[in-house]
Amino acid sequence: MQSISSNFIEKLRFNENGLIPAIAQDWLDGTVLMMAWMNDESVRRTLETGRTWFWSRSRQEYWCKGETSGDRQYVREAYYDCDADTLLFVVEQEGKGACHTGEYSCFFRPFGPGAASDAVVDAG
Amino acid sequence: MQSISSNFIEKLRFNENGLIPAIAQDWLDGTVLMMAWMNDESVRRTLETGRTWFWSRSRQEYWCKGETSGDRQYVREAYYDCDADTLLFVVEQEGKGACHTGEYSCFFRPFGPGAASDAVVDAG
Repeated sequence: MQSISSNFIEKLRFNENGLIPAIAQDWLDGTVLMMAWMNDESVRRTLETGRTWFWSRSRQEYWCKGETSGDRQYVREAYYDCDADTLLFVVEQEGKGACHTGEYSCFFRPFGPGAASDAVVDAG
Repeated sequence: MQSISSNFIEKLRFNENGLIPAIAQDWLDGTVLMMAWMNDESVRRTLETGRTWFWSRSRQEYWCKGETSGDRQYVREAYYDCDADTLLFVVEQEGKGACHTGEYSCFFRPFGPGAASDAVVDAG
């Protein structure tokens, strides 16, 4: 198993810090839940455990999503993009959702034209 | 208009190269189409034109998605995440799709358990 997943991981293009962006999308309704970073070892752990493992840049440590909060993500599908420098995990999201704020998705703040916030761009 | 969008852009957390990841998602069916990078000026252009503008790290230039291919993206909704370090644009995708390979989404290559590719992890 190790050798096969390693072969795949060698194809990925990690950045200068050894990291690759990983998007998590809800398996049920397609909601984009979050984006976080993985290194080669967290990709490997994700493949082997079926749960999302990220690398925390601020804490410089691995974190398995939901391990403390209970808001776990179980991987249903996984994709890499045409440039092999971004990953997409389609996940079954448990618990309250993906965001540490309590929101279901981390992308809960709208901006731009039409958004009801101070970020609205006045088209006038 | 300039000042309002500038106020918003100042809240964003660009990385050490002045860039922020921007995910594009299909407005019609929720497909995650692509991930590319924006700097403050491409965020501003995206807000002002209603089309996605990215910064090409390899070519070191702005690119308006679909300007040459015709596969344009019109922004319907825009979100920033809880950490203000990733953007999500929900777009109306014109033409053949988002990927330069001709695929509709850049995330067309599956990997991991269950994927029909050489990246399959043998669970045995």
